[in-house]
Amino acid sequence: MGMQSKPVRASTTYISDLMSPPDANLRGSVFGGKVLAMVDKAAAVCAMRHSGRPCVTVAMERVEFLVPIRVGDYLVAEARVNHVGRSSMEIGVEVYSEDLEKGDRRHTNSCLVTMVAVDPKGRPCPVPRLLIETREEKARFAAAELRRKARAA
Amino acid sequence: MGMQSKPVRASTTYISDLMSPPDANLRGSVFGGKVLAMVDKAAAVCAMRHSGRPCVTVAMERVEFLVPIRVGDYLVAEARVNHVGRSSMEIGVEVYSEDLEKGDRRHTNSCLVTMVAVDPKGRPCPVPRLLIETREEKARFAAAELRRKARAA
Amino acid sequence: MGMQSKPVRASTTYISDLMSPPDANLRGSVFGGKVLAMVDKAAAVCAMRHSGRPCVTVAMERVEFLVPIRVGDYLVAEARVNHVGRSSMEIGVEVYSEDLEKGDRRHTNSCLVTMVAVDPKGRPCPVPRLLIETREEKARFAAAELRRKARAA
Amino acid sequence: MGMQSKPVRASTTYISDLMSPPDANLRGSVFGGKVLAMVDKAAAVCAMRHSGRPCVTVAMERVEFLVPIRVGDYLVAEARVNHVGRSSMEIGVEVYSEDLEKGDRRHTNSCLVTMVAVDPKGRPCPVPRLLIETREEKARFAAAELRRKARAA
Amino acid sequence: MGMQSKPVRASTTYISDLMSPPDANLRGSVFGGKVLAMVDKAAAVCAMRHSGRPCVTVAMERVEFLVPIRVGDYLVAEARVNHVGRSSMEIGVEVYSEDLEKGDRRHTNSCLVTMVAVDPKGRPCPVPRLLIETREEKARFAAAELRRKARAA
Amino acid sequence: MGMQSKPVRASTTYISDLMSPPDANLRGSVFGGKVLAMVDKAAAVCAMRHSGRPCVTVAMERVEFLVPIRVGDYLVAEARVNHVGRSSMEIGVEVYSEDLEKGDRRHTNSCLVTMVAVDPKGRPCPVPRLLIETREEKARFAAAELRRKARAA
Repeated sequence: MGMQSKPVRASTTYISDLMSPPDANLRGSVFGGKVLAMVDKAAAVCAMRHSGRPCVTVAMERVEFLVPIRVGDYLVAEARVNHVGRSSMEIGVEVYSEDLEKGDRRHTNSCLVTMVAVDPKGRPCPVPRLLIETREEKARFAAAELRRKARAA
Repeated sequence: MGMQSKPVRASTTYISDLMSPPDANLRGSVFGGKVLAMVDKAAAVCAMRHSGRPCVTVAMERVEFLVPIRVGDYLVAEARVNHVGRSSMEIGVEVYSEDLEKGDRRHTNSCLVTMVAVDPKGRPCPVPRLLIETREEKARFAAAELRRKARAA
Repeated sequence: MGMQSKPVRASTTYISDLMSPPDANLRGSVFGGKVLAMVDKAAAVCAMRHSGRPCVTVAMERVEFLVPIRVGDYLVAEARVNHVGRSSMEIGVEVYSEDLEKGDRRHTNSCLVTMVAVDPKGRPCPVPRLLIETREEKARFAAAELRRKARAA
Repeated sequence: MGMQSKPVRASTTYISDLMSPPDANLRGSVFGGKVLAMVDKAAAVCAMRHSGRPCVTVAMERVEFLVPIRVGDYLVAEARVNHVGRSSMEIGVEVYSEDLEKGDRRHTNSCLVTMVAVDPKGRPCPVPRLLIETREEKARFAAAELRRKARAA
Repeated sequence: MGMQSKPVRASTTYISDLMSPPDANLRGSVFGGKVLAMVDKAAAVCAMRHSGRPCVTVAMERVEFLVPIRVGDYLVAEARVNHVGRSSMEIGVEVYSEDLEKGDRRHTNSCLVTMVAVDPKGRPCPVPRLLIETREEKARFAAAELRRKARAA
Repeated sequence: MGMQSKPVRASTTYISDLMSPPDANLRGSVFGGKVLAMVDKAAAVCAMRHSGRPCVTVAMERVEFLVPIRVGDYLVAEARVNHVGRSSMEIGVEVYSEDLEKGDRRHTNSCLVTMVAVDPKGRPCPVPRLLIETREEKARFAAAELRRKARAA
């Protein structure tokens, strides 16, 4: 109340990195843990940008690892706010991997992360509402609303 | 076929670590990414012990982060095989955090990880069946069976 | 020769990260070395995207560190090709830091990096020419041309 | 005095990890330093569990590295209290390495670590006495007592 | 004024390390970012030794990467004060790489770093003057003086 | 036989670093594991310089941690060959810590490390004999000889 709503694009966030040997096993496949750490960081920055507050991770939904990522790939985690509650935000994160020699870019993972904004004492505090501007954003908001109700039920 | 089945206890795995400053933000709260990296490692070691093969992470189910973990805590990720398919294994991972000065230990996260055993060319290959020995193991197997069918449907 | 030229936008690259405690000294100021590592990675990915080849860093020009970066800031290194020679590329990298609670974004560093594309034996090999599309790109190309001549002289 | 004694099993501690490329040299052999860091952490957690206090490492006895450890191995450092003085504790740490494909587990290192419990100002403070329950614990206590006298002499 | 001048040799500093897999790409070449992080640390320690104050990096001049550095090499960054202003110091850093099996040592990089000493509030504060003792030090001081004037012009 | 002997000074090695937050616990005290990793690296570089071969750590003698090391300190591990056998070398490592603001340097740890030179198949291979040049080197050689005999007995 009284807090101005914010558009999705104002907090869309990218965390990106070049995969190097410490990120992978001996066969050159990047660890799932590395990908999830980037997903968590992207969601956290996105939520902090939307709320202007420190934010904590509350839940991460199912993630699939169907496309292997290699050392030498360029990895991008792209996070945007799908939905906001009073103090919680559902952040959608898409991960893309690019083979820099072949030049092809593949979608490797999707993940939904729930973040909560907290005050200096660590208690949940209200966040701005979401200003929906595009048809895609509307669809993502509606899908998140359904998931929310399903989880509450 | 012909491959001997293995009991759950033969592959139960612990990954444990003392949380230090690089694992946390400035307020001393451990990053979700650090926890998920330990969950992924525990599941991988557990699956490799059961199958005797290199294994890759296929999916990680919803994880909640309801209990904050602090720098200085001792963290344990405990992984056991819940269910096996032809080449896939569902691994259940429980995470516990211990405050070493107060001496109390809390359950902080639960997570289900699907791993697949692969041959030297990276193709899925068969894994031993699971020898169920306790009532708890039976219940976990049945629950995993239901999840599997729900996902297939 | 025969190699198609590529537009600047096709290889523009972002490396971005949330600054955490290991990136800083005890007073919370991020090390110059962390910033330069991100600059080097951004330039390398940009050069590999333009050339489709492994690339090595040949030189990094003067960098100033006039604006302090803090743990908790979101840092972005933005790299684009300014100029190409036969096998070398001058990459311009701009670094921006964002205070996620205040929401302000500041330009913190500028840097010019010279990269060379190499073949599997590590020998320099030709790279596509640069397709100049905007007035800004033209100005950057001309400025790089002058620097190149000054250095040759 | 007045402080209750604690059994050895109450503080037995495991630090365990999957060895990855950053832990090893180019030939895939894990650095001694990685092993010793795990030994030090296991001893510290064990001592903090016994004393309920922050603890500092005072000395580490001779360690031998006779069995090579490889990237991909699962490593466990197992720590237990051998003996306690007024504020010092002798912790015995055994390290085991498991080849996950072959399934064999080998003992790789033994190490004795002396830890001291400290108060908030960093001064040594008293720790609970040790409740000896098994013949093995008794033997380890006696051996530690002899080492202690030998060192004092 | 009133502050005693200090000789160059009193603050000459070495940062040295054995290059390991996390420092390099898959082909075994050490990242420029690793080298620059060592250069920055060497300059910072050198400036703190000369001034007895915390110091911040203000600028790093052009660095060339003409000699590749390999995993397994022993790398040394050698820093000395070339020139001092009121609160700023120009530090010259030379990097040497040694192939430990062949036993040959090569000069790989040169770099000039400007550091500023700061008081507890982060404001620039005066530093001791430089006591020039050798012909080489005199030449380096004069060259730095020229660069300083060129930059001011 | 036929292999030329080498002086101690030819392989004397320094590994040095500025202690940063990831190297320490929350109270700012550097982990013993960080110190031992630097000791191990210094001994390894020293042994490789003497033998011109890859070397593996065979044993590390008792180390005491009596002087605390702080984040912000400059740490140096200084390694020299004390004694050589057919393929083994005893390396003495001394660790010094410098408080950069106060300017005082303290000896913090001493450690003896036994390294063995290996051929490409990992088998022990002969190393050059040691050319003793100073009285100190002679004393260290004699003391190592005594330790060696004591261990053999």
